[in-house]
Amino acid sequence: MKKIEIGHGSGGRLTRELIHEIFLKHLDSTELRELEDAASLNMHNQAIAFTTDTYVINPLFFPGGDIGKLSVCGTINDLIVSGAQPRFISAGFVIEEGFPIGDLETIVMSMARVAGETGIRIVTGDTKVVEKGNCDGVYINTSGIGEIRYRMSLKKISPGDLIIVTGTVGDHGISIALSRNEFQIETEIKSDCAPLNDLILPLFDIDGIKWMRDPTRGGVAGVLVEVCEVSGLGIEVEEEKIPVREDVRFVCEMLGYDPLYLANEGRAVIIASEGCADRIMNSLLSHPLGRESAIIGRVSDGFRGVRLRTSIGGERIIDLLDQEMLPRIC
Amino acid sequence: MKKIEIGHGSGGRLTRELIHEIFLKHLDSTELRELEDAASLNMHNQAIAFTTDTYVINPLFFPGGDIGKLSVCGTINDLIVSGAQPRFISAGFVIEEGFPIGDLETIVMSMARVAGETGIRIVTGDTKVVEKGNCDGVYINTSGIGEIRYRMSLKKISPGDLIIVTGTVGDHGISIALSRNEFQIETEIKSDCAPLNDLILPLFDIDGIKWMRDPTRGGVAGVLVEVCEVSGLGIEVEEEKIPVREDVRFVCEMLGYDPLYLANEGRAVIIASEGCADRIMNSLLSHPLGRESAIIGRVSDGFRGVRLRTSIGGERIIDLLDQEMLPRIC
Repeated sequence: MKKIEIGHGSGGRLTRELIHEIFLKHLDSTELRELEDAASLNMHNQAIAFTTDTYVINPLFFPGGDIGKLSVCGTINDLIVSGAQPRFISAGFVIEEGFPIGDLETIVMSMARVAGETGIRIVTGDTKVVEKGNCDGVYINTSGIGEIRYRMSLKKISPGDLIIVTGTVGDHGISIALSRNEFQIETEIKSDCAPLNDLILPLFDIDGIKWMRDPTRGGVAGVLVEVCEVSGLGIEVEEEKIPVREDVRFVCEMLGYDPLYLANEGRAVIIASEGCADRIMNSLLSHPLGRESAIIGRVSDGFRGVRLRTSIGGERIIDLLDQEMLPRIC
Repeated sequence: MKKIEIGHGSGGRLTRELIHEIFLKHLDSTELRELEDAASLNMHNQAIAFTTDTYVINPLFFPGGDIGKLSVCGTINDLIVSGAQPRFISAGFVIEEGFPIGDLETIVMSMARVAGETGIRIVTGDTKVVEKGNCDGVYINTSGIGEIRYRMSLKKISPGDLIIVTGTVGDHGISIALSRNEFQIETEIKSDCAPLNDLILPLFDIDGIKWMRDPTRGGVAGVLVEVCEVSGLGIEVEEEKIPVREDVRFVCEMLGYDPLYLANEGRAVIIASEGCADRIMNSLLSHPLGRESAIIGRVSDGFRGVRLRTSIGGERIIDLLDQEMLPRIC
């Protein structure tokens, strides 16, 4: 199988070939084809959102996705939960010398598929190659631009607001943990990695939505702790309302993970006023990616921080972990 | 000295500390301080340019700059040569476990300095940490958004147009080669790494400018070959008109490099009609970064490809190299 050579990152003839034979073949857009250093874009409005993420996930291929799908979905999701309709994405590759070109093509095809399905365009890119041993296969940075359609703000959150998650929690984290092959556990668990624009966009018509975030690194717990730290409010979560797949719960118990801290790549946490909860839930539950949405808790001014009411009636304080349970989860 | 741990990339408490103690300390902008996944930005117009580059330069610190300065200058330059006034930059870090936090801070301070000097804002970021041996210190992706002020196009180029470079050629490439310490040569050569927005912006008032590019990987030769391939025209360059520092020329001769292929990080190649050459040269020569600007050649329809007229009256065909002479130059 053909492999990446140092020369593929040189800006010379080999780089040109790689761009044409892999990137332009699959990610064909008018802007990319120009091969300029910057893409010229026309926005519909002047209020835009801008985000960046580098993906260093290990392994590169996992049940439910690969680093290519993840890198495009992740940036789409960062934009949509910020109230912005995703429009344009950039892709910056760091590739390890010796990486199979066939694997690179599979990854690029995954990126192209998500872009095609969502109508979001990959318009500019960059390729660097480093010597064998200076990268773990491939790292991908995707940055994204969206048009702001809804003004989310932590400042809008007030006591009584509800906490909604748009699906089961922890699928991505557990699928990655198991795909590292350390545990020899066979399951059907797949990453929830998915683009959320189609699920979330209709919600921008609902005024009572205060704020959203996709619970990736740090999980739902990380998102809620941050909300409390910034707002000075409290959040009470009911453990039994948190949607967790049976097999994810089982693996968590075996391995000592808490699903609330596990990364998700196709879920959103939504904070909204109680009055619009029915409309939000109806909208979410009618979408394939939101069928297991649930109201899991409520904002309060009676205390600070995040409290979990456990299924047996106890109470537990939720705080940030010093470290992720699973490094390189995204 | 404190070092980066895997937990610094976890999204937990350590990540938070790193963000506050290093990134927000130096890169303080309203948008970054929000700590949202995407920055909300207001553009002045709807025609924007979008670019991305990942920097994997080795070594991280070199005469005239470091990876931080390079990563911000590089993205500013990609925007300005595309006819766009740079406005906003994102920064995505991949950091190797064990990397000294003091070095990271130096790098971030370099980024902050260029941003401060140019008025360009770093508005969103991401930090990932990989295990020791899976990255060579630190890789930085910067993506950038600018507002289009001038429409550059290769299609505007016509026979008789002049080729201008805005300064000496090859300084960056040679400074990197020598700072790798393989050759034991002592010189005063520094990278030309610099932000070009202030040099180039005044040129947008001159109609006769056709197209620009910053000659990084692949050098001036790479840029000119690409122009010829896309336009179907020829370019003749006069070797003796190409500004090359004496010490750069000396090192090139010793090591067998051709300055025309060496990377530059603070230069632009400008193609413009002959009629506006005086105005352009006056503007360039009056700026500290353009003092050694020179007209080095001319576009022709009498042949295809790039020809170099050598100082002894001969002629040489300039083509792309298969490989870069120096990998990891940016």
